[in-house]
Amino acid sequence: MKRKNLLLALLLLPLMAMATEVNSPNGNLVLNFTLEKGRPTYTLSYKGREVIRPSHLGLELAKDKHASKGLNETDLMDGFEVAEIKQSTFDETWQPVWGETRDIRNHYNEMAVSLRQRLPDTTEYRGNGNDDGLALISHWRDIIIRFRVYDDGIGFRYEFPQQADLNYFLIKEERSEFAMAGDHTAWWLPGDYDTQEQETQETKLSEIRGRMKQAVNWGNSSVAVFSETGVQTSLQMKSADGLYINIHEAACLDYATMHLELVDAQTKALSTKLGGGSNAYTPDPKPSPWPVPAPFTFVSHLTPDATGLKGCMQTPCETPWRTVMVSDDARDMLSSNLILNLNEPCKLEDTSWIHPTKYCGVWWEMIVGKSSWNYTDEFPSIKLAGDAFPNSPSTIINYQLAKPNGRHAANNEKVKRYIDFAAKNGLQQVLVEGWNVGWEDWANMWKRDVFDFQTPYPDFDIKMLNDYAHSKGVKLLMHHETSSSAQNYERHIKDAFKLMNRYGYDAVKTGYVGDIIPRGDHHYSQSMNNHYLYVVKEAARHHIMVNAHEATRPTGLCRTYPNLVGNESARGTEYEAFGGSRPDHTCILPFTRLQGGPMDYTPGIFETKLSTWSDNTSWARITIAGSLALYLTMYSPLQMAADLPEHYEKYDDAFQFIRDVACDWDQSIYLEAEPADYITVARKAKGTDNWFLGGKCDENGHKSTIKLDFLDKGRKYDCTIYADAKDAHYETNPKAYVITKQVVTAKDVLKLTEAPGGGFAVSLIAK
Amino acid sequence: MKRKNLLLALLLLPLMAMATEVNSPNGNLVLNFTLEKGRPTYTLSYKGREVIRPSHLGLELAKDKHASKGLNETDLMDGFEVAEIKQSTFDETWQPVWGETRDIRNHYNEMAVSLRQRLPDTTEYRGNGNDDGLALISHWRDIIIRFRVYDDGIGFRYEFPQQADLNYFLIKEERSEFAMAGDHTAWWLPGDYDTQEQETQETKLSEIRGRMKQAVNWGNSSVAVFSETGVQTSLQMKSADGLYINIHEAACLDYATMHLELVDAQTKALSTKLGGGSNAYTPDPKPSPWPVPAPFTFVSHLTPDATGLKGCMQTPCETPWRTVMVSDDARDMLSSNLILNLNEPCKLEDTSWIHPTKYCGVWWEMIVGKSSWNYTDEFPSIKLAGDAFPNSPSTIINYQLAKPNGRHAANNEKVKRYIDFAAKNGLQQVLVEGWNVGWEDWANMWKRDVFDFQTPYPDFDIKMLNDYAHSKGVKLLMHHETSSSAQNYERHIKDAFKLMNRYGYDAVKTGYVGDIIPRGDHHYSQSMNNHYLYVVKEAARHHIMVNAHEATRPTGLCRTYPNLVGNESARGTEYEAFGGSRPDHTCILPFTRLQGGPMDYTPGIFETKLSTWSDNTSWARITIAGSLALYLTMYSPLQMAADLPEHYEKYDDAFQFIRDVACDWDQSIYLEAEPADYITVARKAKGTDNWFLGGKCDENGHKSTIKLDFLDKGRKYDCTIYADAKDAHYETNPKAYVITKQVVTAKDVLKLTEAPGGGFAVSLIAK
Repeated sequence: MKRKNLLLALLLLPLMAMATEVNSPNGNLVLNFTLEKGRPTYTLSYKGREVIRPSHLGLELAKDKHASKGLNETDLMDGFEVAEIKQSTFDETWQPVWGETRDIRNHYNEMAVSLRQRLPDTTEYRGNGNDDGLALISHWRDIIIRFRVYDDGIGFRYEFPQQADLNYFLIKEERSEFAMAGDHTAWWLPGDYDTQEQETQETKLSEIRGRMKQAVNWGNSSVAVFSETGVQTSLQMKSADGLYINIHEAACLDYATMHLELVDAQTKALSTKLGGGSNAYTPDPKPSPWPVPAPFTFVSHLTPDATGLKGCMQTPCETPWRTVMVSDDARDMLSSNLILNLNEPCKLEDTSWIHPTKYCGVWWEMIVGKSSWNYTDEFPSIKLAGDAFPNSPSTIINYQLAKPNGRHAANNEKVKRYIDFAAKNGLQQVLVEGWNVGWEDWANMWKRDVFDFQTPYPDFDIKMLNDYAHSKGVKLLMHHETSSSAQNYERHIKDAFKLMNRYGYDAVKTGYVGDIIPRGDHHYSQSMNNHYLYVVKEAARHHIMVNAHEATRPTGLCRTYPNLVGNESARGTEYEAFGGSRPDHTCILPFTRLQGGPMDYTPGIFETKLSTWSDNTSWARITIAGSLALYLTMYSPLQMAADLPEHYEKYDDAFQFIRDVACDWDQSIYLEAEPADYITVARKAKGTDNWFLGGKCDENGHKSTIKLDFLDKGRKYDCTIYADAKDAHYETNPKAYVITKQVVTAKDVLKLTEAPGGGFAVSLIAK
Repeated sequence: MKRKNLLLALLLLPLMAMATEVNSPNGNLVLNFTLEKGRPTYTLSYKGREVIRPSHLGLELAKDKHASKGLNETDLMDGFEVAEIKQSTFDETWQPVWGETRDIRNHYNEMAVSLRQRLPDTTEYRGNGNDDGLALISHWRDIIIRFRVYDDGIGFRYEFPQQADLNYFLIKEERSEFAMAGDHTAWWLPGDYDTQEQETQETKLSEIRGRMKQAVNWGNSSVAVFSETGVQTSLQMKSADGLYINIHEAACLDYATMHLELVDAQTKALSTKLGGGSNAYTPDPKPSPWPVPAPFTFVSHLTPDATGLKGCMQTPCETPWRTVMVSDDARDMLSSNLILNLNEPCKLEDTSWIHPTKYCGVWWEMIVGKSSWNYTDEFPSIKLAGDAFPNSPSTIINYQLAKPNGRHAANNEKVKRYIDFAAKNGLQQVLVEGWNVGWEDWANMWKRDVFDFQTPYPDFDIKMLNDYAHSKGVKLLMHHETSSSAQNYERHIKDAFKLMNRYGYDAVKTGYVGDIIPRGDHHYSQSMNNHYLYVVKEAARHHIMVNAHEATRPTGLCRTYPNLVGNESARGTEYEAFGGSRPDHTCILPFTRLQGGPMDYTPGIFETKLSTWSDNTSWARITIAGSLALYLTMYSPLQMAADLPEHYEKYDDAFQFIRDVACDWDQSIYLEAEPADYITVARKAKGTDNWFLGGKCDENGHKSTIKLDFLDKGRKYDCTIYADAKDAHYETNPKAYVITKQVVTAKDVLKLTEAPGGGFAVSLIAK
């Protein structure tokens, strides 16, 4: 065994002089790597200004009876030597199947740091060889920390090659640090294992702890909160001197979703127990043995499984990329493709069946409470047939004989009405929720066999309605509410997708409302993240697009699996019926939630005061012009016209913009942006010379001056402006809009005023 | 609401005089039900002797954030009134698809006790009706405890009708008591959430606690022990005055498997923490608030899920039957059909594809260590393709290029050798383990994507081998080792069964070695019990018979799903290669493990000293004649000839019995029986006039005198006796057997001597 040690020494000798710094292609970002007493440490600067102060990297491993050797239980935190550092450059331009731009440049400088952690030698019996059969065996473990430095930020990840002393290991906690250089302003959501639908909080970093309790109880939306300083990603920040910094992750595959926990400057404690939330987590009372980092330092905090562990790993494997975007221009936060670039290229060979889609749906009226998903109110609870057991036939409801409640929305007549509306207005699909049996009692009952995804209610003729839709050039959009019973969904998924193929559906909206089954698991755990991807891959096999609601926040996987055309994974329009969202909500989401992929925000509410047409007293904090703007500022290849057909028919001149607007783009230019204040964007519709503009602002209103110099020079455009009226206001006068038409060229300048909670939308059709 | 209360009072009035006693049809058993301070209480006597002293019945419910109303959290333990008692008689004879007898009589007297638990009235707002809209609402919950009293024992269960105040509830613990009348001798296994493969302990009840630590560490086989007095069912006992008492359960469907915990006479504590076992459970430190019962009282203890809860219930539903068998004749324990009778009739319409089977297999040589399941030793760990992610192609092993280890048993040549052997000897099937990729590293790694159940190793030509087998009238028997990754198995199961259909397999041996995935769950939890049944039902849809190893111990479900042709669920023959089992092991199993259904014990080891043909120093504690006896005494429709073909070829005259013996029966007569001492049985082969006899004894030997008066009178039979030689002994001379032939009639008497650890087998072929 001496030979091995010698070899090791020889390998390590020449590494002392290696470069440990890597710059972005334009030189603005500088990343430095060092070992601080054997602990991996990095810093990041932007144009000479500190972005990340010295921050440690590493993982704590769990002690487990099944770790293949005791050696595996040594934390991957310290005791490292640098074995090798490789630097390289990469530059390519690729084309997404759908997106904000036709071409995406993936240009970075890379530094792969190979680290070796020596473990104690052991004396082991080896049957052959030495005289006494005993040999001194050396042990070490190799990991790689790979950094990629772009002009708009960085990504790094841990890689674990297959090796003798690291085959299987369990993650107790990933401890990647992000030491902020100051007490930045942050736009954050409370860290939570099961929801990401809270209102965004805007505070200084030092104020997070003080705001947490209020944030958690806000709208009663938090579920499984774990810390007084735990926040979600993507986390948008702004420094006092005007640097925009965003922390998120990319390519979260079969790994738990990351939260960030801010180290408290005074107590330096992590994972303080928090009272709020209905499922508050009790953290390990033993404090971490690792030294506490500097103030304003975030440490990664992964989502646990039912037993409290964070990950089960088999080498070769790697973590997701941890990303830090940075710029002195807020618009760069929105135009960045960092997250997509850090994901793997498309794995689907045939993508011809994937298409951006505008749709309407039988949905908003149930959300508002005017009609119901369920068909009957006759029974205190119901059991479905099929795999449920030990249900005897007598305990299974015969829906044909059940008494209808008269409020069931997904009925033949109503769905035909929506199909007609879609066909007339160029919407490609009609979502129908509540079409399938089981809605009488579903989420949060620990009810495994909750839906079968195949049996329609008696008043929903699945064949007739699909035939009717197809005859009008429209498709129905399938809905699979899983009620978070992932096990049940996996049992039925193949048959459910076959049914979709049979009737001609090519897209499914999935839902994960309520507690995860199997019990004790969480929405953002490794196993659930694996489940969501399993669904996307199984869907791809059936040529089905997926729009997953309540699933984990996206991390750019849509590059690899472009049939993942949408996610909710944030506070969507539905909350306008649950008490409302702040007017600045949609001016924050593009900086945070949308970093990982498009959101099915379901915009387009025209009748914002719900009490004018329902018993719901909630109201949407937006003007009609602002609603139109969302089709531009909230990028998605899947855009809903969420309001009722009769509401759109009352404002058909404004609805013209929804008819016209594209949802796939060759080019996108962010003209103005400031988190939680305003966003203005110009987009060129795919394969055309037409442009669309959208501007959305917060409760303070906004004035935009837009130079049209992005238009083709010398060409004329029919310009239609949908603007707030002078006296428009999201609360007092939301439906006051003005539509003006003119002909413009690249030399023109538009001056547009957005009302409080308002916005504007502009179409520029090339003549 | 007063109307309701009045109605309630009227209903309850006439119940005071109701009969609360029910006898067995022959009058030997008397079951009495009372309410003791509102707590359901029962007693049982047999021929006037106490069997069950006053024992309480009830369930503790869990406090859960999602209990649909706070009312549900009141325990179902006390505060009951009797609402109604119905008595009835049932008598039918049914025919199992396969079994020990052609006809089974199901004859019992039933008492259904309807109990009502009043809950506090509440004042609730009701929008219509009273002046102020407030109404006083009465609440109550109805449950039924149903008792069935047979001549050979009783069953009772809890039933929960659908009702306003009990729709969903969570079980913290079922607290069904079984108060024994004395310090009986018991044959028990340590209670364990994940294994039932320990050696049986024989002690007085009072000695269980003192023996537990030794029992747990015996052969290092315990995994998740929960109590110093926790034992498994079926629990066989014998009273000092010669009563045989057996406690088990029937029809465990979507409910956690029951253990029994003995209340300590001194400390009266339940669920004491136990050090032993690698995954010892830490019980709730808070003692139960319920009064402690009398000494020698067992209380039910269910298997928890990952969060520690015992059951998620939706009404209408019921628990499994809790069974108590009792007789003063040990043979009645073996001939009883109580468990089967308490299960639902067959739910499969077509059972023509289900058939008893004798088989051999590529198995024992891997168990012994002479060859391997895995194909290569080249890699420290492996990842499969398919659904595993984020495996890039480079991390997936190409088995075609992998270096074979030269020890892989499931290769074309060897499998053909087994097929030839089966064809020559009238064995219908050949099991092949290790045919599919993934065996390089599998159990206990928390590796979810461990097998795909579809990809053969390069040296196993699945099409050729099935074609070859079919050409010789033999089928291959499929093997699906799940590695306890239930989630992975469910993802692949439909495709795996389709593959079986494609190649002509009609039976699968499943396995659940190692820790359950999803993590934290247990082998005998509600969710895993649901999984096992899901597999059986999915298999039935594909006309596949199931033989499930390491799955929960059976409770008679094979009546309802007769394609469940076998289970392991106990210490099988494999342990003869892991250090051995005691000679009396097979004289206990029919009293315990076999109560719930047949065991795939895989008998037939002829070369019992493994060191004579392998490096394994373990040895089977049995003679060859004893091995032959197991084909009779260990009833199963699935019988393996487990030893190697070359070993059988050396003792072909003895192997003749395995060729001849049936595995489906018209009639079975237990001639002699004493737990852990000896069992003698005569069985008449299905659809024939041929009989087979088997006798098996413990380490002390046994002399049998067998009157053949069960034979057809006046008919002659060719009688072949396979007996231990005079000097045979399971340790010193296991292969000494004598075969004698004679012609006998019903008037003859056989006198047979069984050697220590030996037995005999007899065939009686009608002339």
